[in-house]
Amino acid sequence: MSKAAQTRQLIIERTATVFNKKGFAGTSLSDMVEVTGLTKGSIYGNFKNKEEVALAVYRYNTGQLSKNMKGWIAESKGAHSRLLAFVDFYRQNWKAIFENGGCPILNAAAESDDTMPSIKATVKITLEGWEKTISRIIEEGIKEKKFKQEKDPEEYAGLFIMMIEGGILRSKIADSPEKLYVILDRIVKIINEELAR
Amino acid sequence: MSKAAQTRQLIIERTATVFNKKGFAGTSLSDMVEVTGLTKGSIYGNFKNKEEVALAVYRYNTGQLSKNMKGWIAESKGAHSRLLAFVDFYRQNWKAIFENGGCPILNAAAESDDTMPSIKATVKITLEGWEKTISRIIEEGIKEKKFKQEKDPEEYAGLFIMMIEGGILRSKIADSPEKLYVILDRIVKIINEELAR
Repeated sequence: MSKAAQTRQLIIERTATVFNKKGFAGTSLSDMVEVTGLTKGSIYGNFKNKEEVALAVYRYNTGQLSKNMKGWIAESKGAHSRLLAFVDFYRQNWKAIFENGGCPILNAAAESDDTMPSIKATVKITLEGWEKTISRIIEEGIKEKKFKQEKDPEEYAGLFIMMIEGGILRSKIADSPEKLYVILDRIVKIINEELAR
Repeated sequence: MSKAAQTRQLIIERTATVFNKKGFAGTSLSDMVEVTGLTKGSIYGNFKNKEEVALAVYRYNTGQLSKNMKGWIAESKGAHSRLLAFVDFYRQNWKAIFENGGCPILNAAAESDDTMPSIKATVKITLEGWEKTISRIIEEGIKEKKFKQEKDPEEYAGLFIMMIEGGILRSKIADSPEKLYVILDRIVKIINEELAR
C-alpha cells in the first residue's frame, strides 16, 4: 500500500465507530482530528470532503459486519443450519454490534434516505446484496429438499432482514437484547415450521 | 395562547418536516430560519438551544402520527378489526409518512441511541406507550374471546411494532411500499392464524 492509501485506511478505521455512533451529519471534522491524531489538512488531503469519508467508512463498517457474519455462517453445514446460524449470529453478537453503534446499514438508511442520495443508493445496494446472500441459502435448502419447493426465497430473505433491523432498533433503545430475542425466536419459528419440510 | 406560545408552536410546526428529514444533527439554524421566516434571535429567544427545539418537534411529530393512527383505528369496532386497522393504517398511509421523512420514532431512535441521551429516553417512552396501546387492543380481544387466552399481548405488540419499523426502513430506501407490504401481510397472517381463535 502507498503512504496515501495507508493514511486513507487509518482515517477510515479510526473514524468508523464515531461515524456509526454520531451519524454522518453529527460527526465533525474535530471528531475526525481527535480520533485519528491527524491534522485537518492531512484528512482533507486524503479525502475530497466529509461525504467521501462517510461513504468509505460506511463501506468499511458494512464490509466488517458482512465478513464476520459470513465467517459465522460458514461454520455450519447445510442450508438449514446455515440459515439458523445467520439468526444465531445476532443472538451471540448483539453486544459487540451495539457497542459499535448498532447496525451500520440501519443507521445509514435512517439518516440518508431523505437528504443524502449517494449514500442512500449505496445502502440500497448493500441491502439488496444482503438479501441475495440469505436468499441463496434458502434456494440451496430448496435444492437440498430441506425447504419446501413452493416458498419464495427472496420474500423470506427480505422478511428476515427487515425483522432483524426492527429488532436491533428497538433493543438498542432499551439497552437490552430482550426485544431482539423475540424477533430472532420468531424467525427461527418461521424457518423451522414454515420453510422446513 | 400567549404570543410566545404561538411563536413556539409556529417554530415547531414549520420545522417538523425538516427535522424529520435531515435529523437533529443535520438540521441547521439556517434551515430553521429559512422555514420559519423568523430571525435567529427570535428562534433562540423561544428555545434554549437546538436540542430543546428537536425534542419539542419530536413530540409534535409523534403526537401527530399517534393522533392519526388512533383516529384510523377508532373507525373499527371490536378488537380483531381494530388490530387489523392498525396494520391497514400503514398500507394506506405509507406515502404520506414517507413524504414527511418517514417514521419519526425510527429516525429519532437511530440518531439518538448512542449520543443523545435525553432524546433516547423520550423515544423509549414513546415506544413503550405505543406497545401499550397495541397490547391493550390484544388484551381486549382476549376478553372478547376473539383472541386465544394463552397469548402474551405485550410480546405480540412488540413484535408487530418492530416488524413495521423494519419494513418502513427497508421500503423507504427502495422508494416503494412493496417490502413494507410483505411485513404487513405477515402481521395480518399472525393476527388471523395465530392470535385469532
